[in-house]
Amino acid sequence: MEDLKDVYISPLPDSPYVKPFRFNYTQNGKEKTWDLLEVHDSVAIVVFNVTRKVMVFVKQFRPAIYYNCIHPDDRKEEVIDTKKYPASLGIALEMCAGIIDKNKPVEHIAKEEVLEECGYDVPIERLQKITSYRSGVGVQGALQTFFYCEVTDDMKTEQGGGVDDEIIEVIEKTIPEIEEMVNSPGPIASPPSCLFALMWFLHYKADKFKK
Amino acid sequence: MEDLKDVYISPLPDSPYVKPFRFNYTQNGKEKTWDLLEVHDSVAIVVFNVTRKVMVFVKQFRPAIYYNCIHPDDRKEEVIDTKKYPASLGIALEMCAGIIDKNKPVEHIAKEEVLEECGYDVPIERLQKITSYRSGVGVQGALQTFFYCEVTDDMKTEQGGGVDDEIIEVIEKTIPEIEEMVNSPGPIASPPSCLFALMWFLHYKADKFKK
Repeated sequence: MEDLKDVYISPLPDSPYVKPFRFNYTQNGKEKTWDLLEVHDSVAIVVFNVTRKVMVFVKQFRPAIYYNCIHPDDRKEEVIDTKKYPASLGIALEMCAGIIDKNKPVEHIAKEEVLEECGYDVPIERLQKITSYRSGVGVQGALQTFFYCEVTDDMKTEQGGGVDDEIIEVIEKTIPEIEEMVNSPGPIASPPSCLFALMWFLHYKADKFKK
Repeated sequence: MEDLKDVYISPLPDSPYVKPFRFNYTQNGKEKTWDLLEVHDSVAIVVFNVTRKVMVFVKQFRPAIYYNCIHPDDRKEEVIDTKKYPASLGIALEMCAGIIDKNKPVEHIAKEEVLEECGYDVPIERLQKITSYRSGVGVQGALQTFFYCEVTDDMKTEQGGGVDDEIIEVIEKTIPEIEEMVNSPGPIASPPSCLFALMWFLHYKADKFKK
């Protein structure tokens, strides 16, 4: 995962992933604009292995995090110096998640992601829909639906790690390790959706596994 | 806040707010690209009023959320029908927050945001830095620093509501109302950073105010 080279920045071509546009409106009589990005809705799944009482995370290299660790002056270099900026800077710990790019019920997409990324084949009824929220309020406001799913060791039928070109590692953490993570002074290489999921689990679910 | 009209979408001009680009890299021998957005680092502050035991939120119209509530077919209209899609769809409830666009310590920026948005003039020492995390992992990976701040009624020296063209309303919620909010089936018109902050507060702080 940490073998990184030939890193450089180039202008955005017509991209299927990032579609920026301007939103124009008049609010309380004042003309305003806001620049936005069209992104897919998504699912995120808190996967807790009840056999071994561990939370299942996915770990992967995230260009967005890596880029933000590069000093603004160094971003202008023709090629980014990966000795100065090793890949480890951009490696994130996240909940299992995926975008909704198929016309299927969200539960099915969540089930697929748990299998593809984490390797657990879970019955759809085990996916408990908790809530949904906006993935951002600034440039992207897509909906993310949040599930909780308890798994057992015997549901682990595949290795996980993603599909196609994805390089994803499955990581497990005990409840004390989760507590340590959310109490770290940071920077935590995780998004707020992961931290929300962890706090939600600690507050509403963890006690029953502590006995 | 809900007086909305003349809503339309246009192509992105050269924008000071949204700067998309392509990140090129070779990972484990495979050439890859990832499309990104350059965004500012930010602060978010959980403001709890200990005089009246209420959490302080900011409420504002967010084009990114509003846009995502419009059916994809209707997004192509020359002008968006605000009767079919009222402004209320895009009104978000958030923690006090702001971008870091000045060369000042983060605590100072947090203090300014609490005053500008919520109207509380807090001594810098009352801003307790909790942690920091990545605001996203997909297209934006800027750092958000998260503070906790207990305020009293007598620190409320201004009305709040933002500066310049900002239309921000200050909202208060009791602890049972916060619990109700995070337990709602959704969609919650809030970002995960707000939900993380609320769960963090409920788990680590709320008990002492429940007596």
